Amino acid sequence: MDQLTLWRRYRDYRCDLPALGFSLDISRMRFDEDFFAAMEPAMQRAFAAMAELENGAIANPDENRMVGHYWLRHSSLAPDDQIRQAIDAAQHDIRVFADRVHRGDIAPPQSRKFTDLLLIGIGGSALGPQLIADALGAPGGRKDKLALHFLDNTDPEGIDCTLAQLGGRLKSTLVLIVSKSGTTPETRNGMIEAIAYFGRKGVDFAKQAVAITMAGSKLDQQAQSERWLATFPMWDWVGGRTSLMSAVGLLPMALQGVDTHALLEGAAEMDRATRLADTRKNPAALLALMWHLATGGKGRKDMVILPYKDRLLLFSRYLQQLVMESLGKEKDLAGNVVNQGIAVYGNKGSTDQHAYVQQLREGVDNFFATFIVVLQDRIPAVARTAPEVDTGVTSGDFLSGFWQGTRSALYENGRDSMTVTIDTLEARTLGGLIALYERAVGLYAALVNVNAYHQPGVEAGKKAAAAVIDVQRQVVAFLKEHKEPVSAEQIADRLGQPNLAETMYHVLTHLAANKRGITLSRGKFKWKG
Amino acid sequence: MDQLTLWRRYRDYRCDLPALGFSLDISRMRFDEDFFAAMEPAMQRAFAAMAELENGAIANPDENRMVGHYWLRHSSLAPDDQIRQAIDAAQHDIRVFADRVHRGDIAPPQSRKFTDLLLIGIGGSALGPQLIADALGAPGGRKDKLALHFLDNTDPEGIDCTLAQLGGRLKSTLVLIVSKSGTTPETRNGMIEAIAYFGRKGVDFAKQAVAITMAGSKLDQQAQSERWLATFPMWDWVGGRTSLMSAVGLLPMALQGVDTHALLEGAAEMDRATRLADTRKNPAALLALMWHLATGGKGRKDMVILPYKDRLLLFSRYLQQLVMESLGKEKDLAGNVVNQGIAVYGNKGSTDQHAYVQQLREGVDNFFATFIVVLQDRIPAVARTAPEVDTGVTSGDFLSGFWQGTRSALYENGRDSMTVTIDTLEARTLGGLIALYERAVGLYAALVNVNAYHQPGVEAGKKAAAAVIDVQRQVVAFLKEHKEPVSAEQIADRLGQPNLAETMYHVLTHLAANKRGITLSRGKFKWKG
Repeated sequence: MDQLTLWRRYRDYRCDLPALGFSLDISRMRFDEDFFAAMEPAMQRAFAAMAELENGAIANPDENRMVGHYWLRHSSLAPDDQIRQAIDAAQHDIRVFADRVHRGDIAPPQSRKFTDLLLIGIGGSALGPQLIADALGAPGGRKDKLALHFLDNTDPEGIDCTLAQLGGRLKSTLVLIVSKSGTTPETRNGMIEAIAYFGRKGVDFAKQAVAITMAGSKLDQQAQSERWLATFPMWDWVGGRTSLMSAVGLLPMALQGVDTHALLEGAAEMDRATRLADTRKNPAALLALMWHLATGGKGRKDMVILPYKDRLLLFSRYLQQLVMESLGKEKDLAGNVVNQGIAVYGNKGSTDQHAYVQQLREGVDNFFATFIVVLQDRIPAVARTAPEVDTGVTSGDFLSGFWQGTRSALYENGRDSMTVTIDTLEARTLGGLIALYERAVGLYAALVNVNAYHQPGVEAGKKAAAAVIDVQRQVVAFLKEHKEPVSAEQIADRLGQPNLAETMYHVLTHLAANKRGITLSRGKFKWKG
Repeated sequence: MDQLTLWRRYRDYRCDLPALGFSLDISRMRFDEDFFAAMEPAMQRAFAAMAELENGAIANPDENRMVGHYWLRHSSLAPDDQIRQAIDAAQHDIRVFADRVHRGDIAPPQSRKFTDLLLIGIGGSALGPQLIADALGAPGGRKDKLALHFLDNTDPEGIDCTLAQLGGRLKSTLVLIVSKSGTTPETRNGMIEAIAYFGRKGVDFAKQAVAITMAGSKLDQQAQSERWLATFPMWDWVGGRTSLMSAVGLLPMALQGVDTHALLEGAAEMDRATRLADTRKNPAALLALMWHLATGGKGRKDMVILPYKDRLLLFSRYLQQLVMESLGKEKDLAGNVVNQGIAVYGNKGSTDQHAYVQQLREGVDNFFATFIVVLQDRIPAVARTAPEVDTGVTSGDFLSGFWQGTRSALYENGRDSMTVTIDTLEARTLGGLIALYERAVGLYAALVNVNAYHQPGVEAGKKAAAAVIDVQRQVVAFLKEHKEPVSAEQIADRLGQPNLAETMYHVLTHLAANKRGITLSRGKFKWKG
């Protein structure tokens, strides 16, 4: 298409939400009008499905659960008073708690005020707070009210590095344990490591600890019995990957000093706009349709997310979780094997132009790009003193120019892209972006008829891992009893489980490498205690 | 395949390099013996091509350049004395310089010693140093000799945040400007921003600045004329994405306090092993073959990189650049349009199991996984005081169990994976891993007959961006002369460039959002000065 046609297409199809300073541009996706018409019946069914979900239907049938993340930013939508009051009360409690921490009314035993926050969680219980911490932290030169740190894995060395960073501030570090079920092994391990570390440093963990979990969970019980500072709720109608606007996201955000009201308001505003059953005016519907167009409704292309904003570096990883965990399903709702999903990756522009954009432009044509553009490129107070890099030209003009340049260069080579633009990056607009993608995922899931709210595939890996831990106990017990050097295969045979030889081999190799009482010599393992 | 067959397969195909504490396991890739036989002639040609490259052939024909990154860790391989001496001298100078900085013999005017290092670079000039900084930084509780910070983009707010972080340590911050050509716009902008910031804070930039660039470049000239502390060389036979073992990686690494000798030794060791024209014993050849198997030699599947080690979080991003920029090419060496490449993404395990592994296991089958396992899970001194998380079980046992569990769960569902294992993560083994992937990329490029050492697609985006900056100058000049409000379309028409209306629209919208003398009202722009 020539430039004038593209310009017309840009104006015709751009979807604006002035209240959020937001627009979506789909002009560089290769659709025609027929596509909209063909998809409209399916799209209307998707709107209806989302309306039911918002009204409290069991939208997650496998787990017999409602799906309520939309209520979190508009509690009057909740299907009953109990849920409504729970949402309102939690939000109130979070603000009061954060305020008391900031004022020093809630303070650690050995210090006047809390200075740092250590969040222990994984997946949906960490990635949202990490995104917020990066994207909405205090602007250059100012400090967050509490500095955030994360344990988001069961990697011992990662845990050591993070705990060591706290240094002398351990005694003024608030610890937040986030686990919906209260039994996530990585989170539990991180907590045990943190408790031991606090103990070694002579700091009373329980007096600096807070839990976010479902009422009655093992974690909740521990928090109650050890009299932690506070507990905030999770609910079974909020999934991990959409928990950012529950206490999981709001509490760390409030403690950091970011406006939680604004985030919720922005999300509510986007919800209003994307609830509209008018496809052409609904940016979430347009996104879902473009995903369908690009991937044939079968995940045939990858979604590359390119925010031209350093602070949004984690946004692609956040969307990777939201999109892939929601859409990546073996079966559709009718039980047919469909192997659905869309792969998502990306970091940030223009940095990525010096990395993989070479392949995007010229290489295998297996993706569509989404650019995220933020018009205001630095806070005005700083902009006044910032240098020009050429006469009349700023660093930000280059950033903007690189976005336009890459968009054109991709299009010329037949690679499709969309552009999401926001005026400024702040709590309100980030709330809007998150709500946009949550709704787009919901609509797309309806279009391809999958349950976006469960994750049955995650269980298999967990069970297999638990089985490995059991095998570890067996082989260690065996070696302790039998003093002679033996191979993994011999152990497996003698335990009557020849199928487990390889598992045993890896377990033993790991134990030997960590000097856990086992030596390895010429392929044979031996207990040395 | 049953467990016993898989175990046999594991033992038969595992490729060990005991000198590096390294092994590669390809047993969970679905190949058979015929595949090796069929590929062997092409593989032998690939070995021959790599041998020529190492001997100084013009392996990058488009740019008429030799490809010399293998010489960096074994200078006696270099094709002539001049190159050999240049490599040796640079490595010597780097160690001496870092040592003098650490001792305070080279110190800033207003402080006794340098405490921090700000590296300004992008793409190959930043990602390698970022990986090293993360992967090899001082272990828990100890401090790097210099703390590293990066400006790797032309994002004004990103720049503001990074500079603000330096706080009162600006006067003891060494600045390293890294640009091979010395003209990379992002890097140049970062430098101009840093110079202005130093100026505002009353710190003499030139007395704390170092350059890494090609002799005679614009940056080199600036460093000479302003008498910067030092300049270190880049050479036209080292590409950005393989520059980690030139001054680009070695200088920041040495300043951080990491053993550069060990990194180079590890790479040289891996080079020796992967130079071998014996496919079954050569892990780089096996990797390249497995990539070919998985993607049909056409990039049909994505490469998912999953290190089970927090410190290797950036490794997937490093490989994303190395693999995609090297292999993602429109044309092969014969000039045929082939649109080659392999998409790469990933973060870390087990964290990603709580994100997109749901899709990997059940969803669209468009990837193969590579696990990176590090056997030693924390430094022994710390391990002695670390807690068990269950009787006889540590956090690291869970991490290891999750790797095994996920590997099994993927395999059961027909998803292929490989596992790279190293005993410990340290400079030597990381050098080996990088050399492994550099060689695998070279071999794979030879298998599919593309030039892995140029990046023609990057230029198009750069040119398009420069054109946008030109348009900006035009529209601003136009608005300054014509005082009435006009639309982008009107400006484009009146400048006789109707095709540029959209470019102008985006440029003006960006300027207006940043209050750069232009207002926007009802779709019309106006100069207000």
